[in-house]
Amino acid sequence: MVTSHDVARLAGVSQPTVSRALRDSPKVSELTRRRVRDAATALGYVPSDTGRALSVGRTHRVGLLVTDLANQFYTHTIAPMHLALQSLGYQLVLHTEASDTGSAAGNVADRLLSNSLDGVLLATTAMDSVLPVRLRDRGMPFVYFNRRASAVEADSVEVEARSGMRELTERVLALGHRRVGAVLGPANASTASNRELILRSTLATAGITIPDELSHRGGFDFETGYAGAHRLLELDEPPTVIVCANDVVAYGALNAARELGRSVPGDVSVTGFDDLPEARWPLLQLTTVAFDLDAMARRGASLLVDRIQQGPLEPYRHEWFPSHLVERLTLGPPAR
Amino acid sequence: MVTSHDVARLAGVSQPTVSRALRDSPKVSELTRRRVRDAATALGYVPSDTGRALSVGRTHRVGLLVTDLANQFYTHTIAPMHLALQSLGYQLVLHTEASDTGSAAGNVADRLLSNSLDGVLLATTAMDSVLPVRLRDRGMPFVYFNRRASAVEADSVEVEARSGMRELTERVLALGHRRVGAVLGPANASTASNRELILRSTLATAGITIPDELSHRGGFDFETGYAGAHRLLELDEPPTVIVCANDVVAYGALNAARELGRSVPGDVSVTGFDDLPEARWPLLQLTTVAFDLDAMARRGASLLVDRIQQGPLEPYRHEWFPSHLVERLTLGPPAR
Repeated sequence: MVTSHDVARLAGVSQPTVSRALRDSPKVSELTRRRVRDAATALGYVPSDTGRALSVGRTHRVGLLVTDLANQFYTHTIAPMHLALQSLGYQLVLHTEASDTGSAAGNVADRLLSNSLDGVLLATTAMDSVLPVRLRDRGMPFVYFNRRASAVEADSVEVEARSGMRELTERVLALGHRRVGAVLGPANASTASNRELILRSTLATAGITIPDELSHRGGFDFETGYAGAHRLLELDEPPTVIVCANDVVAYGALNAARELGRSVPGDVSVTGFDDLPEARWPLLQLTTVAFDLDAMARRGASLLVDRIQQGPLEPYRHEWFPSHLVERLTLGPPAR
Repeated sequence: MVTSHDVARLAGVSQPTVSRALRDSPKVSELTRRRVRDAATALGYVPSDTGRALSVGRTHRVGLLVTDLANQFYTHTIAPMHLALQSLGYQLVLHTEASDTGSAAGNVADRLLSNSLDGVLLATTAMDSVLPVRLRDRGMPFVYFNRRASAVEADSVEVEARSGMRELTERVLALGHRRVGAVLGPANASTASNRELILRSTLATAGITIPDELSHRGGFDFETGYAGAHRLLELDEPPTVIVCANDVVAYGALNAARELGRSVPGDVSVTGFDDLPEARWPLLQLTTVAFDLDAMARRGASLLVDRIQQGPLEPYRHEWFPSHLVERLTLGPPAR
């Protein structure tokens, strides 16, 4: 049986450093964390003994609540989250729910509470959801992942969208776009409303607004981008750029443009948000806003494990991952 | 609390039919199954009471073992599998392992066995893996998903690849391709070796072979297709068509062709296997082999639940999902 002492020896660090590194503690440098993770992987180390000893009565399972497992954003979230949890001795149990608002929230909460989980990562919570209230009332630890609801405070990992989204919008303006279209995300998702706010306020500095006819609202999915871009591009005066709520929405928009025979960015520019691996495809070359999703997923997992192990009295932690514009080939000047 | 009787009433069927339909029993027609599933979804029904009463001492958790959660094939597998299991009152726990051969198989087996799962869906098993032996010896129910290992018999769901793969190869020949390249999957995966065998034997009927220099072997992933197509297309005499082990490999090949400035199918044709949703993108329009992955994923889940509930004495079931060619825009005649 491989122990944390073996990992410490191979990585050339102390045993407490191994524990800290595997929890992604900020007390350990990124270099050391990587060395410890590599050593743990090489030895096939799972910190189960220690973990179990520290946590009698726990199940070592955490839930992840998402809306749509087939969405690429979650594909690229679940993989690093799973690996981080595995290295901490926890298993990931999947939960989906189409809606977490109104009476549906009660069903979701019941399901999460009845499944003997140690904690939950909430990746779908609407700002007006009562789910966090239910979980708090029943003492279930949880972490907001890429979301925040105002009713209940909890640990969170979020994207600091302002810098990247402002950079993107300023680039749109600098290129000379004045007729700006947008495919926006769900009005009750903090991420969507936040990105929209930054987009509109930055455009406003140049006196530009997005009229209702040039905006389309829906889910964070391919179909929304596809349908939205179809509608906007078939207007008599289509927008010269379509700012999309995220990359998956932009994939839909790019495909709609192709289907309509519009060249990108010649006839219309398209932008995303997230910088998922597909955005780098030579066939897509999406101009988008990037942040470290992998690190954010791992950090969400380790915040939850910390919370499970330390209990409810520790102060909440809100961690923000910086964002920045990545220029590729889908954003250019408007056609004259 | 919603019961199966409520579902029966809404669906207009008997209560035992509800149980059978939710287990995807072949005794119930597809139409009825769909009606029952819709009714269960509409009412938010989870068959927990019944399930629990029938299965004292069970955890109602099953594991899914995959190599790479970030691979699109698993994205589109996990979503329907999760929903099918949820409707049967089971949770899906994710397990990954880079390798299940040699000594690594022991670690995987230990991990699966120590996690108090009721059963496991094996989606990665190499033909020479000892993992199934370990699971059988410890009495852990499992189902082969899109795979088969020869050492141990178990329930399985697989693609009947012959018809679709032969149809595709015959179309390649009919279009006049003689210089055929291939990016092949792992040699020890039953799916990869099976597809390769059908490809080669069908080509042989026209006297065509794939020389070593025109074949590239790797994983079922984007990088394999990207690197393989790069190598094949940079030959002095590149192939006129690249037959890829699956769709994700073909995505890599299409992107390599774009990067090298080769038009598809003008300069080179590319084909896939699986017909994942991205294959239908207007930007990809991949000619590929289709089967009902959604149904196969649901059926794999229900076979496992049946096995868990009925024990090891019932005869094994091997279910095959038929495949067929889907012609889109990436396969055309060779350039003259």
